[in-house]
Amino acid sequence: MNIGIVGLGLIGGSLGLDLRSQRHRVLGVSRQERTCQLAIARGVVDDASVDLALLTAADVVFICTPLAAISSTVHQLIPHLSPTAILTDVGSVKLSVVKTIAPLWPNFVGGHPMAGNSESGIESAQFRLFKNNPYVITPTNETPPTVTETVENLARSLGAIIYRCSPADHDRAVAWISHLPVIISASLIGACLNEPDPAVLKLAQNFASSGFRDTSRVGGGNPELGVMMARYNRIELLRSLEQYRDRFDQIFDQIEREDWQGLAQQLLINQQARPRFVDPKQELEF
Amino acid sequence: MNIGIVGLGLIGGSLGLDLRSQRHRVLGVSRQERTCQLAIARGVVDDASVDLALLTAADVVFICTPLAAISSTVHQLIPHLSPTAILTDVGSVKLSVVKTIAPLWPNFVGGHPMAGNSESGIESAQFRLFKNNPYVITPTNETPPTVTETVENLARSLGAIIYRCSPADHDRAVAWISHLPVIISASLIGACLNEPDPAVLKLAQNFASSGFRDTSRVGGGNPELGVMMARYNRIELLRSLEQYRDRFDQIFDQIEREDWQGLAQQLLINQQARPRFVDPKQELEF
Repeated sequence: MNIGIVGLGLIGGSLGLDLRSQRHRVLGVSRQERTCQLAIARGVVDDASVDLALLTAADVVFICTPLAAISSTVHQLIPHLSPTAILTDVGSVKLSVVKTIAPLWPNFVGGHPMAGNSESGIESAQFRLFKNNPYVITPTNETPPTVTETVENLARSLGAIIYRCSPADHDRAVAWISHLPVIISASLIGACLNEPDPAVLKLAQNFASSGFRDTSRVGGGNPELGVMMARYNRIELLRSLEQYRDRFDQIFDQIEREDWQGLAQQLLINQQARPRFVDPKQELEF
Repeated sequence: MNIGIVGLGLIGGSLGLDLRSQRHRVLGVSRQERTCQLAIARGVVDDASVDLALLTAADVVFICTPLAAISSTVHQLIPHLSPTAILTDVGSVKLSVVKTIAPLWPNFVGGHPMAGNSESGIESAQFRLFKNNPYVITPTNETPPTVTETVENLARSLGAIIYRCSPADHDRAVAWISHLPVIISASLIGACLNEPDPAVLKLAQNFASSGFRDTSRVGGGNPELGVMMARYNRIELLRSLEQYRDRFDQIFDQIEREDWQGLAQQLLINQQARPRFVDPKQELEF
């Protein structure tokens, strides 16, 4: 198959490495000439160009740009695509992407490989990045089944665990486990910085260990990524923030009223529920 | 020196191992005969008993019971102590402990070795648990300087990093970096469980990866420990919860108003501030 990849960063580059190793012909497009040269030199692609016309021969194109660039990229890409070409993306939010792209190109299905690390750029591309990680495919009622199946088969060939759900369900689920944690973790760091006594702040800094390190990690990450996810998944994030504030207020209230039995009960429910999130093999029961 | 240890769990047991290896004579007291036997067999103590009278010979006594048992333990211990004996504790909250114990025994200074792991009990006792970890000593204006120095020297001999501060400053600092994270992390798990659609909850469970794992870790821990810290550090915890809610509401509001510049600015401040908590060698600047 001829595979096109637009955007040769960590995700696009790692896709190229794996798909080429399966004997697909991989064509890469980047805005930067230097990235094109690096991609060829590192064996990420068979050919690369700054010109989207390279993708005329592509059977399937993965859009691997940042969320904010997906729509304009597709607009520029369409004049070059073969009419039967299949289009997919790797954005971490799906409803807004699918709503924008599906009307432009019916052979489109949204995707979200949930892999990555704190690195970025073509230099960080690696083999088997997607292996044993979730790869979510989000067809709608209008998506041609062959389009979904083609992208799903490619994702499966990466060793990923395939999930199929609606764009809205995807966005709601990632709001809970990915986007909400960023906001509460960021609020923790922000709150600590509010300590008015510099001596106490210094002590807090000296005393901080694994508990603070873990809870503050995602809130201390890349600001652009944080804003992107809030911007593109705003409705679902706001919904999870509201639910979170309710639950936080409930626990706050228990501590204020010294309702230690109620607090113990809540903490026990959490202790029992967490392994069902952290170990996906366990079933979640109610 | 003759060292007494009341409560032979992870902390008490590990103290015994290190102090014995420095040729102190270590006398242990546990409520359970079986623990006494285990402590002797494992070389944690030179002698052990369920009877506090064993500590008549002790020069320094470490109270290593749970917070809730410190006061009653000291009341029972006092009739057996030599008048010059020095008393300290290892509780994770200091103001309430110091306020209760100092009037009973003037040769007392509060302490908090910030070491440990998820294990407990004499079986988990280990050498060098305290090495390179903070050990906070919290004298008041009334604490005899020799008492503070004696306990500080013993803590230093464990390889710990010594901090000296008031009980109130200690409690305020640990509220920020230890107790507040438990509550916000617990609220995250609780909020996710509120998702009304079982299919979305199942997806969230399947998609959860390192971000959720880290942010939810301390909120899914031992419920009794969570209640203890809330109970004994209630005032400082409530203060940090209020500040946290203010900061959370601010970010919530930025997302609601689509103030992406404001959000980016906040996230950038966090990104820059976090290493000062996570790497204590860096200075915190304002």
